[in-house]
Amino acid sequence: MKTIKPLREKKNTAILLIHCPDRQGILATVTEFLNKNHGNIIYLDQHVDRQESIFYMRVEWELDNFAIPSDKIGEYFDTLIARSLQMNWRIYLPDDIPRMALFVSKMPHCLFDILGRYTAGEWDVELPLIISNHETLRPVAERFGIDFHYFPIDAENKAEQEKNEIELLKKYKIDFLVLARYMQILSPDIINQFPNKIINIHHSFLPAFAGAKPYHAAHQRGVKIIGATSHYVTSELDAGPIIEQDVTRCSHIDTVEKLIRKGRDLEKIVLSQAVYKHLQRKILVYKNRTVVFN
Amino acid sequence: MKTIKPLREKKNTAILLIHCPDRQGILATVTEFLNKNHGNIIYLDQHVDRQESIFYMRVEWELDNFAIPSDKIGEYFDTLIARSLQMNWRIYLPDDIPRMALFVSKMPHCLFDILGRYTAGEWDVELPLIISNHETLRPVAERFGIDFHYFPIDAENKAEQEKNEIELLKKYKIDFLVLARYMQILSPDIINQFPNKIINIHHSFLPAFAGAKPYHAAHQRGVKIIGATSHYVTSELDAGPIIEQDVTRCSHIDTVEKLIRKGRDLEKIVLSQAVYKHLQRKILVYKNRTVVFN
Amino acid sequence: MKTIKPLREKKNTAILLIHCPDRQGILATVTEFLNKNHGNIIYLDQHVDRQESIFYMRVEWELDNFAIPSDKIGEYFDTLIARSLQMNWRIYLPDDIPRMALFVSKMPHCLFDILGRYTAGEWDVELPLIISNHETLRPVAERFGIDFHYFPIDAENKAEQEKNEIELLKKYKIDFLVLARYMQILSPDIINQFPNKIINIHHSFLPAFAGAKPYHAAHQRGVKIIGATSHYVTSELDAGPIIEQDVTRCSHIDTVEKLIRKGRDLEKIVLSQAVYKHLQRKILVYKNRTVVFN
Amino acid sequence: MKTIKPLREKKNTAILLIHCPDRQGILATVTEFLNKNHGNIIYLDQHVDRQESIFYMRVEWELDNFAIPSDKIGEYFDTLIARSLQMNWRIYLPDDIPRMALFVSKMPHCLFDILGRYTAGEWDVELPLIISNHETLRPVAERFGIDFHYFPIDAENKAEQEKNEIELLKKYKIDFLVLARYMQILSPDIINQFPNKIINIHHSFLPAFAGAKPYHAAHQRGVKIIGATSHYVTSELDAGPIIEQDVTRCSHIDTVEKLIRKGRDLEKIVLSQAVYKHLQRKILVYKNRTVVFN
Repeated sequence: MKTIKPLREKKNTAILLIHCPDRQGILATVTEFLNKNHGNIIYLDQHVDRQESIFYMRVEWELDNFAIPSDKIGEYFDTLIARSLQMNWRIYLPDDIPRMALFVSKMPHCLFDILGRYTAGEWDVELPLIISNHETLRPVAERFGIDFHYFPIDAENKAEQEKNEIELLKKYKIDFLVLARYMQILSPDIINQFPNKIINIHHSFLPAFAGAKPYHAAHQRGVKIIGATSHYVTSELDAGPIIEQDVTRCSHIDTVEKLIRKGRDLEKIVLSQAVYKHLQRKILVYKNRTVVFN
Repeated sequence: MKTIKPLREKKNTAILLIHCPDRQGILATVTEFLNKNHGNIIYLDQHVDRQESIFYMRVEWELDNFAIPSDKIGEYFDTLIARSLQMNWRIYLPDDIPRMALFVSKMPHCLFDILGRYTAGEWDVELPLIISNHETLRPVAERFGIDFHYFPIDAENKAEQEKNEIELLKKYKIDFLVLARYMQILSPDIINQFPNKIINIHHSFLPAFAGAKPYHAAHQRGVKIIGATSHYVTSELDAGPIIEQDVTRCSHIDTVEKLIRKGRDLEKIVLSQAVYKHLQRKILVYKNRTVVFN
Repeated sequence: MKTIKPLREKKNTAILLIHCPDRQGILATVTEFLNKNHGNIIYLDQHVDRQESIFYMRVEWELDNFAIPSDKIGEYFDTLIARSLQMNWRIYLPDDIPRMALFVSKMPHCLFDILGRYTAGEWDVELPLIISNHETLRPVAERFGIDFHYFPIDAENKAEQEKNEIELLKKYKIDFLVLARYMQILSPDIINQFPNKIINIHHSFLPAFAGAKPYHAAHQRGVKIIGATSHYVTSELDAGPIIEQDVTRCSHIDTVEKLIRKGRDLEKIVLSQAVYKHLQRKILVYKNRTVVFN
Repeated sequence: MKTIKPLREKKNTAILLIHCPDRQGILATVTEFLNKNHGNIIYLDQHVDRQESIFYMRVEWELDNFAIPSDKIGEYFDTLIARSLQMNWRIYLPDDIPRMALFVSKMPHCLFDILGRYTAGEWDVELPLIISNHETLRPVAERFGIDFHYFPIDAENKAEQEKNEIELLKKYKIDFLVLARYMQILSPDIINQFPNKIINIHHSFLPAFAGAKPYHAAHQRGVKIIGATSHYVTSELDAGPIIEQDVTRCSHIDTVEKLIRKGRDLEKIVLSQAVYKHLQRKILVYKNRTVVFN
């Protein structure tokens, strides 16, 4: 079903993400390297965390007249620049289309939102695989023509099932996971395989109401605003680096059921915005916090 | 595909919408009428526009022990109460499931959002018909199992094609229309058949940037916030009663293309929220403005 | 300095606030009582908490032709209606101008905001007294012509000083307190004297980041939105009934200092909005949650 | 009264604002110039408008070890860099404290907000002069110890009075003007003297509801959101480059009076945020649009 829209014109650009200890001249050094080799910069954003003394940068440039062949850019950059500046860096080339797996349970709203965007061609991504601990959403996956695998999970079979899931993720060459209201806690075995590559949506304005039943807790506390938070999954529950948050107003007239309904719209938009930022390579993580470039 | 979720438990309630000239005692009169006949009120909201001296009310009550048979409520209410108070009123019973038709063109985001909600069972509505002036979105309609009719429109065939559309809307017993980024202006022939029953989404914060290409106009003017507006369609373009609006921030870094992308998320949520309010019978229209109850 | 604006025309109305166990017919009973006695209702809002089965109501009516003398309304209402319905109620008459005391420390932004509104005549309130544990803001109080009393507080003198404060509050006939970034925790001795009559502003989106240094904690956690919360003070720190909350976006570029600066604008607006709702008698409290009418 | 807070520690930094035709290497050239001369960059943001092909940049660096004397930086930068790159540039040094004049009429809310911030030391600015076409707010100016000049204006004396105002602005060495709900339209004589140096607040979400009585127009149109817009004044009414906008929700229950009350909080915050951005030298204007750096 990925055919309703002609593919967007492919941009022939490279993206470089950097973080390293801050010092004078890094920006000049990197931009000179690109300019000298005829790389026309079309996006540049940088940030210095002066408290931690860390320099962050994202730069995107056109490859058309770039003097260094694409498959050599990494080697040259590492040799000439990155090593001496102790850079933590990564280059993304036009052919690196990331492969995403969705994990879902019974609630369909985030799944529909992602499938709609995927089908409409909003994102540069492959979506070959949906994994679930329930059969509920299989018909949705099938209608959109995406493989659906069912792994029922209980206390006894969890380790075994996650091993099967990891195997499947490898088979499908999955680059990153999106937990689209997946109602199971992943164990460190999976999390450690995908550092800063598992995006979750939590249905509260974290750090308020971490854990189970946040809308019930929000109602109980009588808050006047509810929220949703997308974050990378770490081994500590709902405590990973926050990517995006949004909120909406509520009042005394909102029952728990109404909060859940209102929250669904927040959840799906906040999750999809986080996935989009991830796909654009605009997120850097350092010490459990994100730099998210515009 | 409307089967992924068990149907919600049907509420056996009646909804009464009223507006009439304001005077003392209307509220007491209506609530007494319901109480006396054992109608347990589960929702009541009212509003008085003191400038226009108009009283508005929405009340919902349980039918289980209500003394008046459902098919007689209208008659009794009209005779005993409405006439002497010059009320403009309407009663909705549990079996009145409205039938909605979607009008679309090429952009799929609002269509996907509505189909996702419909399939998930978020709304009490039937959606038997999608009409379009392009073939682009036919595959989407087909995957969701909904009839899709193609009416190409040009200056010459417009009157004829709209006549065909009206006929089709009658055949499908359609109660209200949703223009989900339909890029044609409806003529008064259709509009007059569905007063306050055609919901449009305009991709700007009306009344700013009415008409064509609002994101280009917003970019040109250098605004720092963009918006979307859902409204009932009237014969004056983008000037009908506003149902819902929302906005998001933008800045100098946003090109027209980025505004369009950001705007899509606004458009689909604002349109779906308006449809939901309409389905809940929470909207009253008077003198080109809406009362939208909570 | 309270003279820059002519006083608003006095409204000759009474306000009745009610909460009681829910049952059929309360609304009809109350509105009938007012109608029968020629009380023209100009505002009515009600809410039923169906989970707790509690009915809440605020009604405001004109006293001009009201059959019951103002000083007898309470007695009549209690005898004829409130007792049999087990109502918790309160009537406010036009001459009940509440008297407010401000508690401040060193930060002036909330103080300036309140003094500006007070001087401009935005609020129906008397503000005869400012109490502080520092001398810093005395010049501000003096310029606005408001009595300023300094009570330095340390671990040893706290009980004694609060006793002096309570005495002063009595002498000034203070009805309610506003803690305008007062950096001391009140002891139960004061709190119990003013149940649901002490309004605090906490500089976070509660329940996230309760307690000290919330902006530091928010920065540390890497949130993408910060907030402020106004609430009634109870004996549990930052856990009282929430009146109003608001938020603003932040990002990786915001240092703690920038969060503090952004937060100031939130704090002063959220606090002043809570005070305004309180002055309008639009807040009811039940089981540590508020009903805040529009 | 400007004494309640100890002065902030003075930052010994220079700020450079640039816009020029875009071409490869500008960023590298400028950062090299600063690095080579031992200017430690503490802030850098840049933007390229690819449609217009214009490069924008704001850079701030420490002067402590900078090799070029402060009073020569402009000359050196112009000679070595700016001329060949056709740069439109401006340098701000630590001693350049801008001098602001306020224009007010009768409404005090924006005035109080600015005076509160000024007195609290939030801004690096001098505020020696308030001009008004009414006497209403003279007592406020006097309490804050700021010169207040009254220029009543009618159709006949307008040209003459503005001449007097311009003279006074010169005498007070005023750098920029803030129209804090000043209810007179300035003539081109004043506007041309202060290009991109007159900040106005308009009480609507421009371009919707330009001109007089925007809250009445918003109410009439039945919008669900109202806004406020700060912009630089140009000779076309309410059409100058937008600096900042913000909005708040409204509904059918809001009368014009309630919209005006809600709007006041928006107006004062949006205006003060624009003034703050201006004082931070974070705004560049090109073709009637602003680049506002973070």
